[in-house]
Amino acid sequence: EIIAALVADRPRPLHGRRVLVTAGPTREAIDPVRFIGNRSSGRMGFALAEAFGARGADVILVTGPVARPAPAVAELVQVETALEMDAAVMARVADADIFVAAAAVADYRPAEVAADKIKKQMDELVIRLVKNPDILARVAARRPRPFVVGFAAETSQLEQHAVAKLHGKGLDMIAANQVGAEEGGFDAADNALLVLWAGGQHSFPLMPKPQLADRLVDLIVERYLASTPR
Amino acid sequence: EIIAALVADRPRPLHGRRVLVTAGPTREAIDPVRFIGNRSSGRMGFALAEAFGARGADVILVTGPVARPAPAVAELVQVETALEMDAAVMARVADADIFVAAAAVADYRPAEVAADKIKKQMDELVIRLVKNPDILARVAARRPRPFVVGFAAETSQLEQHAVAKLHGKGLDMIAANQVGAEEGGFDAADNALLVLWAGGQHSFPLMPKPQLADRLVDLIVERYLASTPR
Repeated sequence: EIIAALVADRPRPLHGRRVLVTAGPTREAIDPVRFIGNRSSGRMGFALAEAFGARGADVILVTGPVARPAPAVAELVQVETALEMDAAVMARVADADIFVAAAAVADYRPAEVAADKIKKQMDELVIRLVKNPDILARVAARRPRPFVVGFAAETSQLEQHAVAKLHGKGLDMIAANQVGAEEGGFDAADNALLVLWAGGQHSFPLMPKPQLADRLVDLIVERYLASTPR
Repeated sequence: EIIAALVADRPRPLHGRRVLVTAGPTREAIDPVRFIGNRSSGRMGFALAEAFGARGADVILVTGPVARPAPAVAELVQVETALEMDAAVMARVADADIFVAAAAVADYRPAEVAADKIKKQMDELVIRLVKNPDILARVAARRPRPFVVGFAAETSQLEQHAVAKLHGKGLDMIAANQVGAEEGGFDAADNALLVLWAGGQHSFPLMPKPQLADRLVDLIVERYLASTPR
């Protein structure tokens, strides 16, 4: 409601544009009850979806399992695994003008999923993991492609990792945040971001995620409009 | 509120008794952002804590990370890992008259926790897991000990696994439910239970968890009162 009030009188620069946003964690099943997950709360992705909607975009939100109500969007797609998120994104990305990958997609999934619950006879257990598809890189490699914004959650060497990801995956923009620190990041109400693109960067200080999403979306819109026609 | 209304005129058979309840999943960190979790929602444990409170007990609720408001209890202890849950239970069990282990404690945790986020250079990754303490068995092995109620979530051979767990761990009672099935169990609003004890058993059909918890607590109180003094 705060965002709605803030943007009530704003222009709608994304009217008629489609924005595809991913949010939340993915869960990779080990067996019917256990899974590998991560601490993404979906807060940032949901706030971004809402902020894009407030600027007139048709928003498609693809989200992993989170414990918060989804914002009103043109299309909401709920998935659990990285493979499901990949399929949901690939089925919708051709029509997207902007793609924002705010989900914390599991990089690996168990090589085999046990059909029955694993019993605990053994003192040690080894889980073999295989790589999941890199959804962000797959979208960035498409031609034509949308304006592609990635996120980097890092526990150390924030800028170096973010620059490497921006160039390595060929993104238009990357928003990097420190996780595992005292404040901000995953599963927190506040966050700070270092945003990088070819030829520029901007730091947002620690602030509530809805406010941060609002300011980040202004920056994305600015860069997106400066870059089109693509 | 439904339970409160139902039990408003009930006797308080547990007045002055302390009941220790565990609820929810545990999370076992792989690195600062990834963890091994399970699908426990905390619904059943929270409903049990509420039902024990309604019967006059002083309830201590030890819960893993769940996305629902905790009921009003005498003491609420929020933990994340199995080791933390073990410590919280062991510090409080000496004073407990009844112990109900409704938490889905992770049987295994990663042998090493990476200090930094694991990067995804490798095509495959192997996670070595070691066994967590068996909190339920540890409580059941104490002398003196509280009246001990365990849960068994099984994907197959429900009764056989439950009987083995009842005798193997020396429990007073076990409540077994099928998981991974179409209905009921983990992260569902409804559940069905097969309850076993030395010399008896009772089946509760599929029903909402608050109602099921209420009926299960009646059965626990009946068996507990029949078994004391211990």
